Amino acid sequence: MTYPFLKGHGTENDFVLLPDLDGSVHGDLSPDDLAQRVRALCDRRAGIGGDGVLRVLRSTTPDDPGSAPWFMDYRNADGSIAEMCGNGIRVFVRHLVDEGLADGGQPIRVDTRDGVKVLTVDGALITVDMGTPKLLGQTVVSVEDRELAATNVDMGNPHAVTFVESLDDAGRLYDAPGHDAAVYPDGVNVEFVVRRGDRHVAMRVHERGSGETRSCGTGACAVMVAAAVADDASRDTDVAYRVDVPGGTLTVTWTVDDRVLLTGPAVVVARGETDL
Amino acid sequence: MTYPFLKGHGTENDFVLLPDLDGSVHGDLSPDDLAQRVRALCDRRAGIGGDGVLRVLRSTTPDDPGSAPWFMDYRNADGSIAEMCGNGIRVFVRHLVDEGLADGGQPIRVDTRDGVKVLTVDGALITVDMGTPKLLGQTVVSVEDRELAATNVDMGNPHAVTFVESLDDAGRLYDAPGHDAAVYPDGVNVEFVVRRGDRHVAMRVHERGSGETRSCGTGACAVMVAAAVADDASRDTDVAYRVDVPGGTLTVTWTVDDRVLLTGPAVVVARGETDL
Repeated sequence: MTYPFLKGHGTENDFVLLPDLDGSVHGDLSPDDLAQRVRALCDRRAGIGGDGVLRVLRSTTPDDPGSAPWFMDYRNADGSIAEMCGNGIRVFVRHLVDEGLADGGQPIRVDTRDGVKVLTVDGALITVDMGTPKLLGQTVVSVEDRELAATNVDMGNPHAVTFVESLDDAGRLYDAPGHDAAVYPDGVNVEFVVRRGDRHVAMRVHERGSGETRSCGTGACAVMVAAAVADDASRDTDVAYRVDVPGGTLTVTWTVDDRVLLTGPAVVVARGETDL
Repeated sequence: MTYPFLKGHGTENDFVLLPDLDGSVHGDLSPDDLAQRVRALCDRRAGIGGDGVLRVLRSTTPDDPGSAPWFMDYRNADGSIAEMCGNGIRVFVRHLVDEGLADGGQPIRVDTRDGVKVLTVDGALITVDMGTPKLLGQTVVSVEDRELAATNVDMGNPHAVTFVESLDDAGRLYDAPGHDAAVYPDGVNVEFVVRRGDRHVAMRVHERGSGETRSCGTGACAVMVAAAVADDASRDTDVAYRVDVPGGTLTVTWTVDDRVLLTGPAVVVARGETDL
């Protein structure tokens, strides 16, 4: 039996999309079988390949106040469930607009396991409200026996942001950087950041469980917040930083009402049928 | 403009197939533009992802004696042209049979830049005649400062086959093993081999230009030949070895007339349209 898929990415954080609007395509699978299907789809050699799967569902409670017309059922490549993905949800919305399922001229509401997110589309760029950051003080990470001071930022998931002279200082990143297990009992995503200009930084990221990746949406947000604090940027107006990641360019805006907006590209590059 | 693609693999050596039977889909591209398209397709994050592209063409000289009805235009992921690929050509033939373009009950002839290859299909398994091996004596490779004796086998491309106590002895293989540049001026594919039983070995491979891969068809052939020589296996009959690779299982047969036959699975897992 075959079923439809699409493949897309946001700054080279890539996803297999599974249209399943009424849940009839994959909804009958047991949790284990669905996890197995996700692993098969995301396998980069035996499958299609992706950092995760975005299953596209209509809301089952569209009339509830506070609900949204769409639900993003996001899964990591290992089949586990995840709350949210800042790059993935932009690809999700790109697909909705491409298909005429949502109006790109209006804010688009998408429910996730982390609550309803509101996105806006502006040509090639899509912006998602990533919520309020938590600044949790200073910590230390280590790479190749060197200790580096880092800023602890929580964007719903834990980050350690460290400013370095050169992105090469992060080394090859084959292994997870060392961190303080008392501060990060569940591990941490580590961002290495250099200055590129006024309100312009570049970063590399090591994601817990994934290794070095081409982009990390929450990581870019954590980096911007740490940089804005280091720069003592005014919080009387919205502040925007350009954040270059290996897979492209993101813009992160910290608003006066303490929200972080992530703006970046999102494209669908292929569509078809699979029996994985 | 979109065009059709398929994705498939043989023991997790994976390929994007481009049906282009009369050359009208991709034939108008300049060499540079075609190379760029191959790179975009094979990009594992921004594209579909693959170790290479198999462009499927009808022969332009089907009536020539010595010709074949099909031409496999094989390209590496970096866009460069390659002569042959033992795993790729099985996937190519799987596609022809799936589509009813070739009769799986008969030997199937496919032209390549390395000449016409003859393949046979037996259910899930496909066999390709990989030609005559050249045994070129002993050499030395090195990993992580350890020197290892190796057998120099040419299967149309260069191999160094080294027998080790454990596949872990190869280390992490992030870097190319050291080799004798006088013996291998263009680099070498290095296979690490352990015994698993009678006529049964397992291997890891570092492919020049690609790093460690899940499977290498010519590498499996080189390993079998080196193992058969080390075992002093009789050459009075066809000799077959099972060769386990990280991505699956291959069977390699060395015939009495000095040909090497590679047998293994080949599957197509997805099909669709792309505009990459």
